[in-house]
Amino acid sequence: MNHFLAIENHTKEEIEELLALAEHYKAQPFSDVFKNKTLIALFFNPSTRTKTTFDLAATQLGGHCVCLEPGKSSWGIEAQEHAVMDGDKEEHLKDAAKVLSSYGDILALRSFPAFKDWKEEKKDSMLANLAKWSTKPVINMETISHPCQALAMIRAIKSKFSTLKHKKFVLTWIYHPQPLNTAVANSAGMIASMLGMDITIANPEGYDLDAGYLKLMGEHCKKNQASFRVVHDMNEAMEGADFVYAKSWGSLGQYGAFNQAVQDSHRGWIVDEKKMALTHHAYFSHCLPIRRNVKATDAVLDSEQCLIYEEAANRLPVQKAIITKLMEGNP
Amino acid sequence: MNHFLAIENHTKEEIEELLALAEHYKAQPFSDVFKNKTLIALFFNPSTRTKTTFDLAATQLGGHCVCLEPGKSSWGIEAQEHAVMDGDKEEHLKDAAKVLSSYGDILALRSFPAFKDWKEEKKDSMLANLAKWSTKPVINMETISHPCQALAMIRAIKSKFSTLKHKKFVLTWIYHPQPLNTAVANSAGMIASMLGMDITIANPEGYDLDAGYLKLMGEHCKKNQASFRVVHDMNEAMEGADFVYAKSWGSLGQYGAFNQAVQDSHRGWIVDEKKMALTHHAYFSHCLPIRRNVKATDAVLDSEQCLIYEEAANRLPVQKAIITKLMEGNP
Amino acid sequence: MNHFLAIENHTKEEIEELLALAEHYKAQPFSDVFKNKTLIALFFNPSTRTKTTFDLAATQLGGHCVCLEPGKSSWGIEAQEHAVMDGDKEEHLKDAAKVLSSYGDILALRSFPAFKDWKEEKKDSMLANLAKWSTKPVINMETISHPCQALAMIRAIKSKFSTLKHKKFVLTWIYHPQPLNTAVANSAGMIASMLGMDITIANPEGYDLDAGYLKLMGEHCKKNQASFRVVHDMNEAMEGADFVYAKSWGSLGQYGAFNQAVQDSHRGWIVDEKKMALTHHAYFSHCLPIRRNVKATDAVLDSEQCLIYEEAANRLPVQKAIITKLMEGNP
Repeated sequence: MNHFLAIENHTKEEIEELLALAEHYKAQPFSDVFKNKTLIALFFNPSTRTKTTFDLAATQLGGHCVCLEPGKSSWGIEAQEHAVMDGDKEEHLKDAAKVLSSYGDILALRSFPAFKDWKEEKKDSMLANLAKWSTKPVINMETISHPCQALAMIRAIKSKFSTLKHKKFVLTWIYHPQPLNTAVANSAGMIASMLGMDITIANPEGYDLDAGYLKLMGEHCKKNQASFRVVHDMNEAMEGADFVYAKSWGSLGQYGAFNQAVQDSHRGWIVDEKKMALTHHAYFSHCLPIRRNVKATDAVLDSEQCLIYEEAANRLPVQKAIITKLMEGNP
Repeated sequence: MNHFLAIENHTKEEIEELLALAEHYKAQPFSDVFKNKTLIALFFNPSTRTKTTFDLAATQLGGHCVCLEPGKSSWGIEAQEHAVMDGDKEEHLKDAAKVLSSYGDILALRSFPAFKDWKEEKKDSMLANLAKWSTKPVINMETISHPCQALAMIRAIKSKFSTLKHKKFVLTWIYHPQPLNTAVANSAGMIASMLGMDITIANPEGYDLDAGYLKLMGEHCKKNQASFRVVHDMNEAMEGADFVYAKSWGSLGQYGAFNQAVQDSHRGWIVDEKKMALTHHAYFSHCLPIRRNVKATDAVLDSEQCLIYEEAANRLPVQKAIITKLMEGNP
Repeated sequence: MNHFLAIENHTKEEIEELLALAEHYKAQPFSDVFKNKTLIALFFNPSTRTKTTFDLAATQLGGHCVCLEPGKSSWGIEAQEHAVMDGDKEEHLKDAAKVLSSYGDILALRSFPAFKDWKEEKKDSMLANLAKWSTKPVINMETISHPCQALAMIRAIKSKFSTLKHKKFVLTWIYHPQPLNTAVANSAGMIASMLGMDITIANPEGYDLDAGYLKLMGEHCKKNQASFRVVHDMNEAMEGADFVYAKSWGSLGQYGAFNQAVQDSHRGWIVDEKKMALTHHAYFSHCLPIRRNVKATDAVLDSEQCLIYEEAANRLPVQKAIITKLMEGNP
């Protein structure tokens, strides 16, 4: 493993290896595999769990974490190669990547899309170019996908089922007043499809995930002889679900042209007990943060079937697993 | 000790034990009582001394500190249970508390009141609910009281007197152009009253501290056969003082309706040499930061009787004492 | 060494000693000369390299770094002695200096001038007063000079030449849409003149550096029997250059009265291949961050002669050298 940028860049075997390693770190939290090493984490966006767990993962493996906030406490960064930098960015990503990778042993990046032009932003230039110019491994801490979160989620699911085969994974859109990143949804569907689950994605009309991601998920399901469906009705999706993963995301069709009225017309897309009653006594989870009683009700979030805290707790051993694998390949 | 939330939650014996432990750490700064442990500190408001000393305390006891800034570099947090989160907060405190206490060993919180509705804000919901939902000990780094600061203050006083009995402690309001938190005043009066000092509080009419705090201070004084008075004239209060603690705070009567003209009419409430001359050669202190020549004059602040640097230096061994006691109860 | 505030405060021998120590740390990155010690770094302005390298330097020497951001996550700071603090600053530098130097073992400061009144700001009050009031060594992380950067630069140059004697150092102004700090230029010219290089400074008319700095550089050159010139044409300066150091800075004549039209009339001051072709196959460098294709072209920045990454990488061993020398004098 040279980088950890997206779930779909890895084989099922690599994913399983990371999960096994996370299991190990759950039991044995401390190690010195990152002794005298540094992880430099670049946050263009807010973070609670990701920042805390990468800092703790680096520290508990014997190393150190430095967090930078480009555009705030650090200089703003331009990602496009050959840009004429007469705007408001002071530093080019090429230079930041080369310099920071000379200081640290792993770089990590959180950089959400700007919600202006999906065709452009789906290229994920900040991440792709960071990996291109960095001389050290790069970790995606959420750009247009969120592979670390997906590992934490699937680990929570696996702890509840003896096998994922023919288990029904429902990824459902939920209402949020603003258009959010599709990243968690992209990676969640991807890892579940790779590991053999039956996938149903539910979202309002006009809110389908990017066709490229959907196509890839479908291919994984086909290969695994599992079903793959996209529906536009939450109740329909819920029927027989073994696991419900809820996430709000912005309509790609409204990219750069967000329509509040259309968004607000989908306020009914909230996970509540009535909808959970349609499932096969499903487990529920969400990546957090979650707006309670807007995206899911307190009753669902505080129920015994809810895995949000298990998933969040998994973030720490999962980050340790990623760091460990990257250091194996780049000692 | 399960949490450290307010001076008044602890017995005089517990306070003395913390002070003795702080004394120990003054002489022996390093230990491994927090080895492999993490303190997660949540700052909703600016901090210089508190942030630095908790970071250093955790580190010098063998552990690690992670600082988060909800609403800035971390997600904004809603504290009210059962809230319908359709405002601007992305994360519920219940979830933040449960998740962060799964990562760390102690949580700490700085969250000033919003100065909108004292009746509501005196419930101290962010702190109370954090302690309720956290599975690990919680430290108050200043909400509506500031118990860590009070320990640092009383330690500075104790270093100057063989006994606190019948020593006159004056807590005086001082002018500041904005309405500030009553927290430091609440905890300072509380600890001084618990430890047997004669208390005089001086502030302009309409600026009395919360009746609940005043009542409790009065009860402590009565129990200790010490005097307790609230006066509305600084000169009157100063007479015979052994220790003067200055602090500005916002009028609870002007909560949500700050009156700049009334505030500015009290510009005369500044501690200067003339007022200090009325005392019994008193020591002076303040929690810092202090606006020089507005709240107290350079002459007072740079005098030999001024304990601001001793008090500030005490913050570090005091935080170590708190961490140590909390870990004893929660190994 | 009591402090590290400006290149010109040190002898050539001290500079050479720091460079030799940096050389040592390049080969041996880890040590425990800062074991159990703390560096407290105050950032009034953004930082990428400086923050990362001081954090890593303190850590890799066995110690710890705490970063504070006065005016943002920490209280705003007033630097003028005897100020009546009725503005927007909550804390006086005297108090911050005394308190923080009681917690930490070294203080470090980044505080850019405000570009309002050079006569006042050239006094460098924040740094001078911090050093005056701190009880521990102070490091300048860029105020009106940038001595750490100058060490990193000269180390990059020295790695390319067997001797600096009679090597032509060109410090050239380059275009940037805003008026920037003169700090890097001041310290770069200073160290190069001290170490015996022939100096040519090129900038538009009206953009001359502060006369005090220029005078001192000239004196150093004279003492070293080296040439010293200020010219107002980049092409003229480039001829025969062995090393080109590019930096944009604000016109001191436009201080407090920035003239965008005049600034923009100098857009032609960009380092490109054509200008580099006029040199004696010169090496090129810049302190970073650099606006690509505005201050220098991609072709220059990506060329083999470009030392920006070497210079940036030097920051880490250089900070270790500074910390080490300061601790020798203040164990």
